[in-house]
Amino acid sequence: MRLEILPVLGIGDVTEGDDLAALIAGAAPWLRQGDVLVVTSKIVSKAEGRLVDVPADGPERLTARDEVLAAETARVVATRGATRIVQTHHGFVMASAGIDASNVDKTRLVLLPKDPDASARALRAALRDRFELDVAVIISDTMGRPWRNGLTDVALGVAGMPAIRDHRGEIDPYGNELQLTQIAVADELAGAGELIKGKCDQVPVAVVRGYPGTGRADDDEGAAVLVRDAALDLFSLGTAEATAAGLRAAATLADGPGSTPADPAVVARAIAAVAEVVAPGTVFTHVTDDEVRAGMVATVPGWPEQATGLLLGAPPTPVDQPDLVRFGADLQRLRTALAAEGVPSALLPPPAGSAASAALAI
Amino acid sequence: MRLEILPVLGIGDVTEGDDLAALIAGAAPWLRQGDVLVVTSKIVSKAEGRLVDVPADGPERLTARDEVLAAETARVVATRGATRIVQTHHGFVMASAGIDASNVDKTRLVLLPKDPDASARALRAALRDRFELDVAVIISDTMGRPWRNGLTDVALGVAGMPAIRDHRGEIDPYGNELQLTQIAVADELAGAGELIKGKCDQVPVAVVRGYPGTGRADDDEGAAVLVRDAALDLFSLGTAEATAAGLRAAATLADGPGSTPADPAVVARAIAAVAEVVAPGTVFTHVTDDEVRAGMVATVPGWPEQATGLLLGAPPTPVDQPDLVRFGADLQRLRTALAAEGVPSALLPPPAGSAASAALAI
Repeated sequence: MRLEILPVLGIGDVTEGDDLAALIAGAAPWLRQGDVLVVTSKIVSKAEGRLVDVPADGPERLTARDEVLAAETARVVATRGATRIVQTHHGFVMASAGIDASNVDKTRLVLLPKDPDASARALRAALRDRFELDVAVIISDTMGRPWRNGLTDVALGVAGMPAIRDHRGEIDPYGNELQLTQIAVADELAGAGELIKGKCDQVPVAVVRGYPGTGRADDDEGAAVLVRDAALDLFSLGTAEATAAGLRAAATLADGPGSTPADPAVVARAIAAVAEVVAPGTVFTHVTDDEVRAGMVATVPGWPEQATGLLLGAPPTPVDQPDLVRFGADLQRLRTALAAEGVPSALLPPPAGSAASAALAI
Repeated sequence: MRLEILPVLGIGDVTEGDDLAALIAGAAPWLRQGDVLVVTSKIVSKAEGRLVDVPADGPERLTARDEVLAAETARVVATRGATRIVQTHHGFVMASAGIDASNVDKTRLVLLPKDPDASARALRAALRDRFELDVAVIISDTMGRPWRNGLTDVALGVAGMPAIRDHRGEIDPYGNELQLTQIAVADELAGAGELIKGKCDQVPVAVVRGYPGTGRADDDEGAAVLVRDAALDLFSLGTAEATAAGLRAAATLADGPGSTPADPAVVARAIAAVAEVVAPGTVFTHVTDDEVRAGMVATVPGWPEQATGLLLGAPPTPVDQPDLVRFGADLQRLRTALAAEGVPSALLPPPAGSAASAALAI
């Protein structure tokens, strides 16, 4: 087995309405069944008219660019300085939503194709129906990634082959069952295509020849399978954004408690976390004896039924008035430390007759 | 221009002490100057003896695996369930620190090479000095990534070529200067090599032929240039980890204030953020008149010199005692909301004669 990566030369400027299948078939009469075409998304966008006009320069250009970015953004993921990493409406997470100012006139910006999988399917169908070429089509674009410098080309749209090659369930030569081995071959093919394209060389299409199992399948799910659900993504927000979200969550901390008993070790950890910042002499007591607790909570007005734990708080006791405002702030600190450990709480008056000044239901 | 990707067949099991250069040169006598060898890191680790013994199964195996992972981990980045994404001592961010249980006997785990760039340089030197083959060497491994499903092969070590192809400063055909265009070609080459290797096919080495500019350079910086500095990384911690860090920061919120005046719009935003959760009737007032503020702060004990702003807080005024504990908690909420907006603050007694019950220096 052997792969070849070949450039398609001679595709000049692409403008709106151009027949991409004809341009490609014309420039590459040597295409064969089973080839994988890696088509730069920019020429797809140009042919589809996915461009917007902007001022060529000046502050109006920056304003216009920001407006275009806002329109293309479904969700902001992370920002720092001029860098805006956002999730597009397709689900792709990219700097500047993939909006491109290069390789186009200064008065225009190129947007991503609206539906790259549909574009890939249409191009594949056109090549098959009109030029009798049964090929797979990958629409590629250049993306950055966390943790690693440099950019690579990846797949935005795929037709005629599965985007992921799945090895799960296979057995290796040592008898181990392979786990977690789904290879994003469409991204690897996109990257391989980029090696031959360069960035200024006017080679918008590369052909990968020899990759098995392509060009004959029409039931694939496209590149959409490469987009990870935000709910399953461990990096759906940048670190700074998430930290700020944590601070905001602390500011608007909802009342608990939760439905599972709090682990005493976890409660102790939260108390220890705020020990250095609360007023010296402030005392927090986790009441762990079931009987004692039952007796106490029976006297607390508004004690929530589902609460399983009781924390008492007492401010320092100087000769004069205790600083209850400071004590209230310190209780909020403790509630936030508990929340950081996954323990919700509610602030309540202390049990009747207790030396404490407040109670937390946890 | 055209690239070929060729498999090196016939390299069998690799064990500690094996001469990789001899194995590769022997299996691929057709290698040429300028070829790029993509060598799976696993055979490098095996030859270098980077394996550890673990129980074949049972709970002791899980314990042993956890200990090995801890030893390979420089920093935990994100966890969920059984998934542990960590930064290794090399700086790579990978699930399970790249520790591999596949394609090896059940009683062993394969670790990453200790210094993949050094391994790449050594292999390149051996092939050149002993077999007169001037080739570039990429040591590759399989990695997941945020936001996109599936895995791809990337470069852990590189010798004989630059890992990044830099287009910055070039001019495109429209006269635009290219920005931000550093292509991680070593990762694209690694991915291209994976296309021919498969996961169970016993093809641990692929050759990419025809990529220009390789095999003659010895002043490259290896794959280390692909590792992004954690300080420059917008995703150095997982979202959940960072949110918890924000909650912990709120719990231990330090006293401000900062040295730059707080924007009144920002202060208003923070007040609005907590409006729904503080006791109804609580009033927060941002004193913006310079003269009035100067007069007030002069009477506040312990007013910090560098403070430029004053916020007053007054609890609701029922006929009976105001709930100062609740008020203190609400002040802490406001301080946290201000911190989320980047405004540090300090909690102080109110100005003498004021109707407020507390002051915040901002």
